Amino acid sequence: MTISQRRDRLRRRLADAELDAMVVSDLVNVRYLSGFTGSNAALLIFADDETPVLATDGRYRTQAAQQAPDAEVVIERACGPHLAGRAAARGTRKLGFESHVVTVDAFTALTRAAGEGCELVRAAGTVEGLREVKDAGEVALLRLACEAADAALKDLVGGGGLRAGRTEKQVRNELEALMLAHGADGASFETIVASGVNSAIPHHRPTDAVLAAGDFVKIDFGALVCGYHSDMTRTFVLAPIADWQRDIYDLVAASQRAGREALAPGVALKDVDEASRQVIADAGYADNFGHGLGHGVGLQIHEAPGINASAAGTLLAGSAVTVEPGVYLPDRGGVRIEDTLVVGERAPDLLTRFPKDLVIL
Amino acid sequence: MTISQRRDRLRRRLADAELDAMVVSDLVNVRYLSGFTGSNAALLIFADDETPVLATDGRYRTQAAQQAPDAEVVIERACGPHLAGRAAARGTRKLGFESHVVTVDAFTALTRAAGEGCELVRAAGTVEGLREVKDAGEVALLRLACEAADAALKDLVGGGGLRAGRTEKQVRNELEALMLAHGADGASFETIVASGVNSAIPHHRPTDAVLAAGDFVKIDFGALVCGYHSDMTRTFVLAPIADWQRDIYDLVAASQRAGREALAPGVALKDVDEASRQVIADAGYADNFGHGLGHGVGLQIHEAPGINASAAGTLLAGSAVTVEPGVYLPDRGGVRIEDTLVVGERAPDLLTRFPKDLVIL
Repeated sequence: MTISQRRDRLRRRLADAELDAMVVSDLVNVRYLSGFTGSNAALLIFADDETPVLATDGRYRTQAAQQAPDAEVVIERACGPHLAGRAAARGTRKLGFESHVVTVDAFTALTRAAGEGCELVRAAGTVEGLREVKDAGEVALLRLACEAADAALKDLVGGGGLRAGRTEKQVRNELEALMLAHGADGASFETIVASGVNSAIPHHRPTDAVLAAGDFVKIDFGALVCGYHSDMTRTFVLAPIADWQRDIYDLVAASQRAGREALAPGVALKDVDEASRQVIADAGYADNFGHGLGHGVGLQIHEAPGINASAAGTLLAGSAVTVEPGVYLPDRGGVRIEDTLVVGERAPDLLTRFPKDLVIL
Repeated sequence: MTISQRRDRLRRRLADAELDAMVVSDLVNVRYLSGFTGSNAALLIFADDETPVLATDGRYRTQAAQQAPDAEVVIERACGPHLAGRAAARGTRKLGFESHVVTVDAFTALTRAAGEGCELVRAAGTVEGLREVKDAGEVALLRLACEAADAALKDLVGGGGLRAGRTEKQVRNELEALMLAHGADGASFETIVASGVNSAIPHHRPTDAVLAAGDFVKIDFGALVCGYHSDMTRTFVLAPIADWQRDIYDLVAASQRAGREALAPGVALKDVDEASRQVIADAGYADNFGHGLGHGVGLQIHEAPGINASAAGTLLAGSAVTVEPGVYLPDRGGVRIEDTLVVGERAPDLLTRFPKDLVIL
């Protein structure tokens, strides 16, 4: 799907909602619909006109022309209000805006610019809804991001980077450098390296804690490639392994497999969560898995759909999601195993290919 | 200054503005006023009560208690509305909120939770105004961040990392790894490495372009330490140097010196910009310096005050700012030189200490 086809999908939704046009303010949504990646922009899409109007400021004149060649580019620091005025001048009566993104102060400016005859209508989540289903170009970039992460972790482990005596921060630093070396533009979020008792903290930040024999080492990380985020967690053990460690590793692995196998178009999101969570509950660890099962991933590290017990809606074919159950035993340690996958009509497409067998180092 | 003293300053401002309380929604402001760094939180500050109320969700129960020991912590996913309801229940009549941060949808929820008797009053920028003047603890962290960046650049240059044949991305990767090795938690923004003609683009992103003899190599980067951002630009030349390169390097260096020397409490922000800009204009390059002179830096890479031709207000003692003039010659190359400094009653305190003499490699 080309970027103009993405806009066509939005334009049909606008028409269905009886909106004449929409001002897109969220920069990720602007990027999705135009290709433009600058830090100050808004995009005006008309239901009845193929050509979008991209507003940005003078720093981005050249970049906007290059990245969004089929848009009309206007240079104007107050992007949103300029486009609202522009829409009103063209006779727009109902103008959608992103009420989940636009601030109260910015809304005041938008309203003023739109004037009397142009009504601002909440259109929160409209573009995010489109983004939930990835097109082929997006899947290709997600795959590259996952491959960079896979390759980095393979080098880290293969090179002996996970060993007693190193600190969590040293491991993070090496892993992030390896992702860059494998073509990533950066880390897709703050890398988690959690050893020993720290592995019991779901979102631990790396410290100077030293890896020691008998530790779990839980690594949750991803690579960023052309705006697309990968997300993967693997948990290792530094020998010797204790029985309780083997037990919860096997349990989380079974839960994660059940979650992956539940991924199919039309399945209720909460049922995917349930499929994975039940495995852990049956073993008596329900209270030790305190977060949702997964989330959508793409131009943002967390996007639609959320996969958890209170999620409404169903999985869509082409959605890219994570499956990441965990069991955390306070003051002892924890295991999480996470993949990024694309939901397919048949089996899901596994993008994070690093093995999930128990590895004792 | 302790964190409770920061809150005392805010409480005095609330009293001056005849607000009974304020809901702080911006996560950086929440961190500044409480120490809490989680990704979902809001903070309620009463004008007449020392104890703040910190709302966050269940993921952060332990972290909130550790990071904000003197706050009352409530676990509630809908942080802002919960606190608005809490304020109303305590008899708050006028409740400040961050209208530059709170979205239209979130404002609807806040208003509903506050109810009839509690008026929501715009208080945009109130906390940012406090943050403009750094306390001793903040300056210490900024200094650490600047030292990590200085040390990384010294290692990069000293180790021969800037040489013909390497790509911009390779240079970025090595520099970012060196910052981590010197104690940074990460890069404070996307590192700019711009060689040859790319150096004429003020905010170039590193590519696979190969450094070549005769190139400018412009590096704009910073380290993040405990939430504080450093910001520095240096421009190098790979031998042989041409006369025009020496000319614009010397010009930018003179302009940057003039900007630094203009930093003093009470000076109009636009006059600081002017002091530096005039040097470039006098040499006939006014059109080749198309951005502002600098900006505040601290918990965010860009914060108050902005130093540019249209800035209102004056410099404050204790403000941390950048001074970063540049001259960019399209399709030829450009130079920018940037420091981070703290405005002092006497001379400014230079935090980025890497030398600014012309270096030909």
